[in-house]
Amino acid sequence: MSAEEILENLKKEIIKRSPKEAKIIDVQFEGPELVIYVKNPEVFTNEIVKKLAKDLRKRISVRPDPSVLLEPELAKKKILEIVPEDAGIVNCVFDPNTGEVIIESKKPGLVIGKEGKTLEEIKKAIKWAPKPVRVPPIQSETIKAIRATLYRERDEVKEILRRIGRRIHRDVVIKGDYWIRVSFLGGAREVGRSCLLVQTPDTRVLLDCGINVAYDDKTFPHFEAPEFSIEDLDAVIITHAHLDHCGFVPGLFRYGYDGPVYCTRPTRDLMTLLQKDYLDIAMKEGKPLPYSAKDIKTCVKHTIPIDYGVTTDISPTIKLTLHNAGHVLGSAIAHLHFGEGLYNLAYTGDIKFEPSRLLEPAVCQFPRLETLIIESTYGGYDDVLPSREEAERELLKVVSETIDKNGKVLIPVFGVGRAQELMLVLEEGYNQGIFNAPVYLDGMIWEATAIHTAYPEYLSKEIRQKIFHEGDNPFLSDVFKRVGSTNERRNIIDSDEPCIILATSGMLTGGPSLEYFKNLAPDEKNAIIFVGYQAEGTLGRKIQRGWKEIPIVTRNGKTKSIPVNLSVYTIEGFSGHSDRKQLIKYIRKVKPSPEKVIMVHGEESKCIDFSETVRRLFKKQTYAPNNLDAIRVK
Amino acid sequence: MSAEEILENLKKEIIKRSPKEAKIIDVQFEGPELVIYVKNPEVFTNEIVKKLAKDLRKRISVRPDPSVLLEPELAKKKILEIVPEDAGIVNCVFDPNTGEVIIESKKPGLVIGKEGKTLEEIKKAIKWAPKPVRVPPIQSETIKAIRATLYRERDEVKEILRRIGRRIHRDVVIKGDYWIRVSFLGGAREVGRSCLLVQTPDTRVLLDCGINVAYDDKTFPHFEAPEFSIEDLDAVIITHAHLDHCGFVPGLFRYGYDGPVYCTRPTRDLMTLLQKDYLDIAMKEGKPLPYSAKDIKTCVKHTIPIDYGVTTDISPTIKLTLHNAGHVLGSAIAHLHFGEGLYNLAYTGDIKFEPSRLLEPAVCQFPRLETLIIESTYGGYDDVLPSREEAERELLKVVSETIDKNGKVLIPVFGVGRAQELMLVLEEGYNQGIFNAPVYLDGMIWEATAIHTAYPEYLSKEIRQKIFHEGDNPFLSDVFKRVGSTNERRNIIDSDEPCIILATSGMLTGGPSLEYFKNLAPDEKNAIIFVGYQAEGTLGRKIQRGWKEIPIVTRNGKTKSIPVNLSVYTIEGFSGHSDRKQLIKYIRKVKPSPEKVIMVHGEESKCIDFSETVRRLFKKQTYAPNNLDAIRVK
Repeated sequence: MSAEEILENLKKEIIKRSPKEAKIIDVQFEGPELVIYVKNPEVFTNEIVKKLAKDLRKRISVRPDPSVLLEPELAKKKILEIVPEDAGIVNCVFDPNTGEVIIESKKPGLVIGKEGKTLEEIKKAIKWAPKPVRVPPIQSETIKAIRATLYRERDEVKEILRRIGRRIHRDVVIKGDYWIRVSFLGGAREVGRSCLLVQTPDTRVLLDCGINVAYDDKTFPHFEAPEFSIEDLDAVIITHAHLDHCGFVPGLFRYGYDGPVYCTRPTRDLMTLLQKDYLDIAMKEGKPLPYSAKDIKTCVKHTIPIDYGVTTDISPTIKLTLHNAGHVLGSAIAHLHFGEGLYNLAYTGDIKFEPSRLLEPAVCQFPRLETLIIESTYGGYDDVLPSREEAERELLKVVSETIDKNGKVLIPVFGVGRAQELMLVLEEGYNQGIFNAPVYLDGMIWEATAIHTAYPEYLSKEIRQKIFHEGDNPFLSDVFKRVGSTNERRNIIDSDEPCIILATSGMLTGGPSLEYFKNLAPDEKNAIIFVGYQAEGTLGRKIQRGWKEIPIVTRNGKTKSIPVNLSVYTIEGFSGHSDRKQLIKYIRKVKPSPEKVIMVHGEESKCIDFSETVRRLFKKQTYAPNNLDAIRVK
Repeated sequence: MSAEEILENLKKEIIKRSPKEAKIIDVQFEGPELVIYVKNPEVFTNEIVKKLAKDLRKRISVRPDPSVLLEPELAKKKILEIVPEDAGIVNCVFDPNTGEVIIESKKPGLVIGKEGKTLEEIKKAIKWAPKPVRVPPIQSETIKAIRATLYRERDEVKEILRRIGRRIHRDVVIKGDYWIRVSFLGGAREVGRSCLLVQTPDTRVLLDCGINVAYDDKTFPHFEAPEFSIEDLDAVIITHAHLDHCGFVPGLFRYGYDGPVYCTRPTRDLMTLLQKDYLDIAMKEGKPLPYSAKDIKTCVKHTIPIDYGVTTDISPTIKLTLHNAGHVLGSAIAHLHFGEGLYNLAYTGDIKFEPSRLLEPAVCQFPRLETLIIESTYGGYDDVLPSREEAERELLKVVSETIDKNGKVLIPVFGVGRAQELMLVLEEGYNQGIFNAPVYLDGMIWEATAIHTAYPEYLSKEIRQKIFHEGDNPFLSDVFKRVGSTNERRNIIDSDEPCIILATSGMLTGGPSLEYFKNLAPDEKNAIIFVGYQAEGTLGRKIQRGWKEIPIVTRNGKTKSIPVNLSVYTIEGFSGHSDRKQLIKYIRKVKPSPEKVIMVHGEESKCIDFSETVRRLFKKQTYAPNNLDAIRVK
């Protein structure tokens, strides 16, 4: 049966099962959803929708037909008329593809009204479905740009969603075995360029599609693997926004992919930010660009955001659910369910299995689980990290000592995750009077922070509450100074004033942190603190290992040596990764206990160590595959 | 550089380095060889050819240009004129694609003449290169048909060879890693449908391409594996003629393959015989046919026979050498050499690592070796087989006892290999007076025996000598009676006369052995002796396990039960496979000792047992992959 025929049959079923007064205009597959366009959406109660979804075994969305929606301009006017001025409406964002309008206000309670009365009134007047949210304390340029793109190119986006929808809901007949295998195209026995190809007789899915910024010759996953065919991909799933997990996604579109990218909404926004930043840095360094800004935009238009815990059809035989991974904002464990209760595989991406200041710990309970693919960054025998409390104490000690002797503290950080975590620590230290000096934020940190405040529901309970009490929002503290230009950066470097600098990139592979380092390295008063994983091959790793001189290329193209005299510290407890103890604990706690465990995302020895440990301790089948190995799990 | 340009350059080099009197007419890639067509081939001494081959790093063949060859009719006349009548010339087989004429005679010495004088004279007169051979004591219909096809369709064959030649010698540029991986499409943790896909950045090679006749749903290898693309295959290598290693090769041609098949000459002939027989049986049983007789012919035309020990370019970066595997006539271990001294992999196919009556033991010395892929049929903990001598004694004991009580002995055998081995044992027993009854040969045994006698150079020294002393040729003994028709078979079944029956198939999956079994099973005087491996799922295995009744479908389509009352014996020492002790001995002896050992071609538990044993004993990396796993070896 063709997708069109399937859709026609579903439409008949829906009409038969729905109240007549709803006036169904159209039924469409849009991405993973079955969307019912009606004249009177209010007729569809939650119960009716739930029953339909259960009966038809589809994710169902009921929307007002475009013909009944009030013009956005007029609708906005109406909203402002209806809602009392005290609500402080800042912005109304219309999404014609969902029929929703996001109403950003200072007091969303007033938009909702008593028992939802105001909301009801708005809905009736404009027909758009109103979604009241609190205005984020910091505005994100990235989110603004993404919303603008999706609005401007809404017709194309709708077309993309319908095409994807038809592909997801196609009819397949499996002859013979239904097997499941995973090919490791990158990130096996290495950190960087994570990329796993999941294959079944009818489906091809890519789990992550990263790049390794540390190497020129191992930058991209093994796309030359014979089983990889960009045209045959059904879906790309991105666990989180770090470049080693998502850096090549726009490149897929450049080379012919035109299917969906599934991730959480924060991941979509953060990865867009990081991909742009990657292009900027590569451009400045004169490196070849694997894709353009246009490809990043294409990627955004193909991204289907999904929330934690919502199960989504991504192919005729595979369902995807994302679960919190505790690693960075929006980071997810991807759980794949194959066939009708046939098999289940979870891929952790990067996980943190304890609470951080920002996030809740990784989820470890799944409805079913046969194979677990787990990261191994700190899977080696001696990879036991200090506790976060110890790490915080040590950080503040180094900071206060360096400030006291009039030095500058450089902390190279991933802009996403580590930076915000450290901001919270430093803000507290500053408030407690442990040091008295400004904290400069350079690179994309500010923007990444803005995205954090836009998704409070993805943050830990504690920080979520703080953010929404403006006087208490730690990210808005006076101690933080945003570095907005090269001049400002120059001034910070040249001034005698002691200070703390948080700057990207986190491994000194480029960006402002490298600039600062070159200038601060010769002075022994200064200090550098590494707070994140430094990959093999990066300058960060070399400095960690004790290099006492580094070669740099000057403006006139000559190479000169810079002495490294500043104090070098590594404080590991801030890592967004689980250490060995936590990884083992995760294996112990994960429910149900899987049959097979596959170790990826770690240096060779760590993957092997971890694999052998789990085999020994838990008597499981474990694997530490190489890149280009393929493992049949079922 | 295109293949044409490469060829043009080589031609220039050859002309520069060759004696002018040779008069070079043309230079062509034909399969793996670089062929020089000349007017005066005699000018090219062995030394000149050797030096050219060394300098140009190509397999070189010098042939008379077709324009100077005498018409075959006239040439034959000339040969008969020149050679004395006593030589007893039976046949002259002209191969226009090699410029050779095979002269089959009773006394090849007389064709050669004193110090090769007669041969020289022939060559001068007809220009064809004469190859004197002794006429085989039994004529093979298969060989006759293959020769006829190759002669009749010689123009197409030449075109095929040239196309393959250009592909082998194409120019490739490898960017990035040169990796090597093996995907297991069949025969991993199972016996049957052996099929391994070797992949490098520039080459795809299939090692074996078998079928499993025992199962209807696991008949064919996993061609749906995403990395398998029939159009991208560079070569197919067949280790030996049993259907579980070569049964699907004609199917490859049916579905679009048009490249070379490499194997020994006996393997080509035996596999053609077995594939035809497979089609015949499937047709009779009304089973779907995966290919037709025409596809078998296409396969023959694409087969490039190579001798043991001759190294052959099969792709721009891979060289193949076949070595004796001791399993059946022409069986080979495939040794692949990658890049310039970069890596070496040997795949044993099926091996016997001790001398049998027919064959020398498997080769265990290679110039280099990093990965060994080895069969595991008898790799389990308790798979220690009795010695051949014990097995022979036991066989003759069962035979003589059954004959003594007027019973019939049914021995289901593989037509190729086991049958001939048993014929040698039975002939000796008959001569020694251990039993006195005829031995009937049914199915393809006779024809397979004929092919054995056509390739004495592939047999053990002892049997080779016997064959050529006609009075002493055991295969021609009076004890053997060929069953040529259904009527004759009926008579044997109905008669009261005790006898021994060797019949195919070897696992009672069809063919005459099944016919005999149905009729002999109810009578307890009779006996059945299993002498070969009975795969999971076959009737043979079920009988071995003690089934006391078997369901059969009668002529009118009804199912009835047949009681199994005859005595059932399993005598394992005749296996063409190494037992566990021999397999371990092989790993110990193989030189150089490989880093990795991969176990295939065995039931799940045996592959795992064997793999663990080798890991423990030899501290090697071992693997027991599943079908659809891929292992990167380099």
